[in-house]
Amino acid sequence: MTVQTVMHPVNGFYLGATAAKIKKNGKTDLVVMELAEGSITAATFTLNAFCAAPVTVAKNHLAITQPRALLINSGNANAGTGAQGMADAIQSCAWLASELGYTPEQVLPFSTGVIGENLPMEKIHLGIAQACSNVSVMAWNEASDGIMTTDLVPKQVSKQFEVEGHTVTITGISKGSGMIHPNMATMLGFVATDAKINQTCLQQCLSDATNVSFNRITVDGDTSTNDACTLTATQQADMPVIDSVDSDAYQQFSTVVTEVMVELAQMIVRDGEGATKFVSVVVEGGLDTVECLKVAHAIALSPLVKTALFASDPNWGRILAAVGRAGVVNLDIDAIELFLGDVCIVRNGGRASTYTEEAGQAVMNETDITILVKLNRGDAEETVWTTDFSYDYVKINAEYRS
Amino acid sequence: MTVQTVMHPVNGFYLGATAAKIKKNGKTDLVVMELAEGSITAATFTLNAFCAAPVTVAKNHLAITQPRALLINSGNANAGTGAQGMADAIQSCAWLASELGYTPEQVLPFSTGVIGENLPMEKIHLGIAQACSNVSVMAWNEASDGIMTTDLVPKQVSKQFEVEGHTVTITGISKGSGMIHPNMATMLGFVATDAKINQTCLQQCLSDATNVSFNRITVDGDTSTNDACTLTATQQADMPVIDSVDSDAYQQFSTVVTEVMVELAQMIVRDGEGATKFVSVVVEGGLDTVECLKVAHAIALSPLVKTALFASDPNWGRILAAVGRAGVVNLDIDAIELFLGDVCIVRNGGRASTYTEEAGQAVMNETDITILVKLNRGDAEETVWTTDFSYDYVKINAEYRS
Repeated sequence: MTVQTVMHPVNGFYLGATAAKIKKNGKTDLVVMELAEGSITAATFTLNAFCAAPVTVAKNHLAITQPRALLINSGNANAGTGAQGMADAIQSCAWLASELGYTPEQVLPFSTGVIGENLPMEKIHLGIAQACSNVSVMAWNEASDGIMTTDLVPKQVSKQFEVEGHTVTITGISKGSGMIHPNMATMLGFVATDAKINQTCLQQCLSDATNVSFNRITVDGDTSTNDACTLTATQQADMPVIDSVDSDAYQQFSTVVTEVMVELAQMIVRDGEGATKFVSVVVEGGLDTVECLKVAHAIALSPLVKTALFASDPNWGRILAAVGRAGVVNLDIDAIELFLGDVCIVRNGGRASTYTEEAGQAVMNETDITILVKLNRGDAEETVWTTDFSYDYVKINAEYRS
Repeated sequence: MTVQTVMHPVNGFYLGATAAKIKKNGKTDLVVMELAEGSITAATFTLNAFCAAPVTVAKNHLAITQPRALLINSGNANAGTGAQGMADAIQSCAWLASELGYTPEQVLPFSTGVIGENLPMEKIHLGIAQACSNVSVMAWNEASDGIMTTDLVPKQVSKQFEVEGHTVTITGISKGSGMIHPNMATMLGFVATDAKINQTCLQQCLSDATNVSFNRITVDGDTSTNDACTLTATQQADMPVIDSVDSDAYQQFSTVVTEVMVELAQMIVRDGEGATKFVSVVVEGGLDTVECLKVAHAIALSPLVKTALFASDPNWGRILAAVGRAGVVNLDIDAIELFLGDVCIVRNGGRASTYTEEAGQAVMNETDITILVKLNRGDAEETVWTTDFSYDYVKINAEYRS
């Protein structure tokens, strides 16, 4: 990263990272996060039926008690590993718990990387001890490096705001650049705050923020087996507790958490495998959210649209065809308007009379592109962020394991 | 094509083709098919809401009368062209009708190529006269060349069989290599037979055959605006008329039509844009067709699976992840078995104990690959054919209009 993000430490949230040699390239690949006593954590997980062992274990542990530590490894997803994978995830928690003096159920495990290989348990064991030997509230950079897989850049966001004169900090990291699709992508996100807030408000905030951030990005339509996002509140800020979603303080808090998570999500898209464009697909005037998302995803996932974006080719017929096959019931194509940026390309069922190839080309030449579809039949509106499909997308994914 | 297909002529089905300069490369791009008096025609069309003008016109004309001529142009799809596109499609029919002595409603128009540009009407007008000047029952090669767009090879199939001692011929051509997905793809198919058969049986036969052929192939998930397939019976064979779908003769006829259409459909996949692999995705043991197809399409459309296929990488975790996100309700992952060819890769929720990377690699090194998913929860079974995603897929689609 050329611009170093200032990562405000969060009181009570400690990080440690090490290179445990799980990754072949020898980079940082094991991260420990320790949460001060009294911290509460909310979490969301992948909906993939073949969810990885650590996802199942994390859900089980969360149902029993509040976590005191998070254990993350990159380089191996511990997914598709059957009973051995479950045993390995639980053993890893037990090792970290033993190191820090907690019970195994107070540890949540997270893994990301290649699917279908067993965790290298000896390396995990050694790595846990190493990572625990030097935890600090300052080690966000090391942690964001340690959770990366095919990511080219770390994803970090940190914001502060005032509640009744008291400063609250929200700091988070994420990873992911392939297998990215709504419902939690190959995506890990860890956000921490020192806010005083109760569990109900914290989970509501995370669910709402996830829905408009990580669940609105797609690189390739592939939903991962391992996605997870946590939001931990250490309760150490000097402020009144947020105990109602109707309070002003909750609204303030929720707004900033959402900003942090939208920025983290957009960073994942910008770092999408082989991405050369950042594309916002906006669908307005739908009857409901479902049909807006159908249209947005039909466009965002079309390989033909994505290759045209890569070529900076204003081949708007492909966008139109994607809208037409999105499965919207009783779609009146004469009512639809399509825009590339602020250039109207389709109106009255065909090319807008005002459209010129030059105007379309000018928009496509940009790096950040907005495709706007006005369905003109209701009030619902949704936005999805995606990327183009490039030679490098194929290259990265054809050579991932070699 | 290295092997020349023997295209048996169909009595009463005449073809003419010409280079009308609609295509920039000067290749054959306009085809006329004339149907002898008494011929009947069944047809199926794209479900894309933004269907092209010729699709709308063809449907309208079919509802009025039996067609006596088909007019096909490649190089321009006449889609996304609004009212002007409708007028142009109707005008084209009128010109061909005038040339051959029919009414405009007796002509069905078909177009394929770039979306969003108006038909070059002067070229169409001249081309119609040229193509009509030399129609013949022998000109299947010229016709299959004339309907191609990004196709690298023409698609031709011809079969004969005996009904009660009388020879019946079924000869067909198709085109398509991009924007290929169930519900009729960017795909045109024209199949002719001299069989004596009534309209009800003919339409039933076409619908059933389409459903297991053209509607089971996918290259990129993009359903075109222009897809259409026709089956014309000229009634000129010396045989008893087929007037019941329960008759033996219908079963014989239907079986061969289905074979012809499956072969034409598979040729489209083999010629998929940038394709280096031919992949059969077979899903067995589903509760119903819908869930089998959900799983098959999740695999067949996954860019991560497709790039792994391109790389001949037995990265089976990506297949497993695709099954997991396919949206099958109450999926029991422990019951699922995954096979690459005849090599079992997943069983009991994880990698099969018998699996070796070498065995998986051997299957992936083949050009024709079968991915088999056994859901083990019902009796439904479906097969979808697809290709890999290569550098050339991106190249072809990034440079299509330049």
